[in-house]
Amino acid sequence: MENIDSETISFIAADWGTTNLRIWAIDVNGDVICKRTSDQGMSMVEPDGFESILVKLTEDLLSNNWVMPVVICGMVGSKNGWMEAPYESVPSNVSKPKRIVSPKTKDPRISVKILPGLKQRFPEDVMRGEETQISGFLRNNPNFSGCLCLPGTHTKWVAVENGLVERFQTSITGEMYNILSRYSILQLTLDMKSWDQQEFLDSVQEITKSPDLLLSMLFRIRAKSLLIATVASPTTAVLSGLLIGYDVLSAKYFWQNRPIYVLGEEKLANLYADAFSFQKIDATVFNVDQATVLGLISAKKIAFELNTYS
Amino acid sequence: MENIDSETISFIAADWGTTNLRIWAIDVNGDVICKRTSDQGMSMVEPDGFESILVKLTEDLLSNNWVMPVVICGMVGSKNGWMEAPYESVPSNVSKPKRIVSPKTKDPRISVKILPGLKQRFPEDVMRGEETQISGFLRNNPNFSGCLCLPGTHTKWVAVENGLVERFQTSITGEMYNILSRYSILQLTLDMKSWDQQEFLDSVQEITKSPDLLLSMLFRIRAKSLLIATVASPTTAVLSGLLIGYDVLSAKYFWQNRPIYVLGEEKLANLYADAFSFQKIDATVFNVDQATVLGLISAKKIAFELNTYS
Repeated sequence: MENIDSETISFIAADWGTTNLRIWAIDVNGDVICKRTSDQGMSMVEPDGFESILVKLTEDLLSNNWVMPVVICGMVGSKNGWMEAPYESVPSNVSKPKRIVSPKTKDPRISVKILPGLKQRFPEDVMRGEETQISGFLRNNPNFSGCLCLPGTHTKWVAVENGLVERFQTSITGEMYNILSRYSILQLTLDMKSWDQQEFLDSVQEITKSPDLLLSMLFRIRAKSLLIATVASPTTAVLSGLLIGYDVLSAKYFWQNRPIYVLGEEKLANLYADAFSFQKIDATVFNVDQATVLGLISAKKIAFELNTYS
Repeated sequence: MENIDSETISFIAADWGTTNLRIWAIDVNGDVICKRTSDQGMSMVEPDGFESILVKLTEDLLSNNWVMPVVICGMVGSKNGWMEAPYESVPSNVSKPKRIVSPKTKDPRISVKILPGLKQRFPEDVMRGEETQISGFLRNNPNFSGCLCLPGTHTKWVAVENGLVERFQTSITGEMYNILSRYSILQLTLDMKSWDQQEFLDSVQEITKSPDLLLSMLFRIRAKSLLIATVASPTTAVLSGLLIGYDVLSAKYFWQNRPIYVLGEEKLANLYADAFSFQKIDATVFNVDQATVLGLISAKKIAFELNTYS
């Protein structure tokens, strides 16, 4: 680990999801001093194991002389996580979460706050973690009105009005990509290690014309490869294009005639932006790591109000 | 095994798919004398292992005094099967297959014929096995014009005109059901052993209203169960309803204003018929086992033309 002076750290920000734990040490200026990632996601951790994993990953950042604030978003706040932080309802001011919880810790060097997720009753939907990314985006874009897209295992489409989350919609696009490429007949056909951008765009076009044919177009990938003796197998770009194209179309209600920002891992976010360009629509990519950190900085201020850090 | 007089057997009919092998001993009247099933599907068999599996399953039905005709349809005729029977192109008279192949056998008691599948060039599509079921249906319904639905792992929608297969469309509906229930987040939520017919119909209705929301509605199953504390978990009927509802809608071109028959395993075929009833459309279920046998009887006549059996 790096040699870091713990006195320069203002607090520790963390995003603890199902499969990963990421932490950032933040200084008084809101800058990131260091970033660490662990594969000890929520699903890998025993109910009473969260504290020790966190302490182990941050040991050298802690001090015996004061209590380090730790602010965490993500699935760690779910029923099966460290401690349940109840969902807040939309419409929601995600920049000012209220239902923050604070699990008891044995280690006197840390004070932990876990942020709530969001829920929507009609139609039923939930998120945990993305609300903090949205808050981070809004820190840089207060009073934003428009559509946010947060692509991933469970892609979130979000309607924001004057800085408030009004409504959202989740699709299992990323999960579908994973299970189709691992377990379906497509694994026999697709070249899982290659990418062809033109195939991606062609597939976006194909599904955009006929969104009712998703399950048929998936089989057509297989049929094509049986019937047409081409040198190269189709790449994962075909599967990605069909699913992302379908996803974008399914969220038309959210983005039509609205400013659009995509908050996601760079490569994936750019694919969504490409799918929008294909429809002659501009979508701007916003760095999701930055959004997460900014969101946790906002939340830290709320969660530890007595501190003057802003 | 039953005690069967091999002299009463006119030929052996077989459907050798990816996961199963089914055989029927047929008498001179076209009646089934016995039926056997093995889990030695094509994917389980070494390239040179097909003959011995077949002989083992039919040993007591064979005679040293004459050569038993064996007619087989299904994936066994694919590139990775016993011997490749090239696809025939649509439009096709499936009752009179031409590209039948005859693998050399060591056992002098059998003569094997493997039936070809069907291919379609625009849009690209293929089938193997279903063409024989269609042929069997047409044996009872010559000059049929209308839509045939053959639900399964890869559901086939077929347009028939005057007894000819004009066009077809495959969807990976069954495969999607399998991988979603095994590998997706829904396995945490759905009660995989229960069924609720009303949930099925509600889900058909839901997806029929918004076919562009399939990937969102799949997540909504999860969100609902997190947000609404009901006693019972949603059943597999929800997943089935969304997928079958989407499948039916995707094939509207095939069935709209046309007579519809569903050829499938009883429970599944009835679900498709239920999904049609929901749209106030009649679909008739036709026994798929019977269709397979009838199709193999038609093919046997073609494949062994010197025989007088009809």
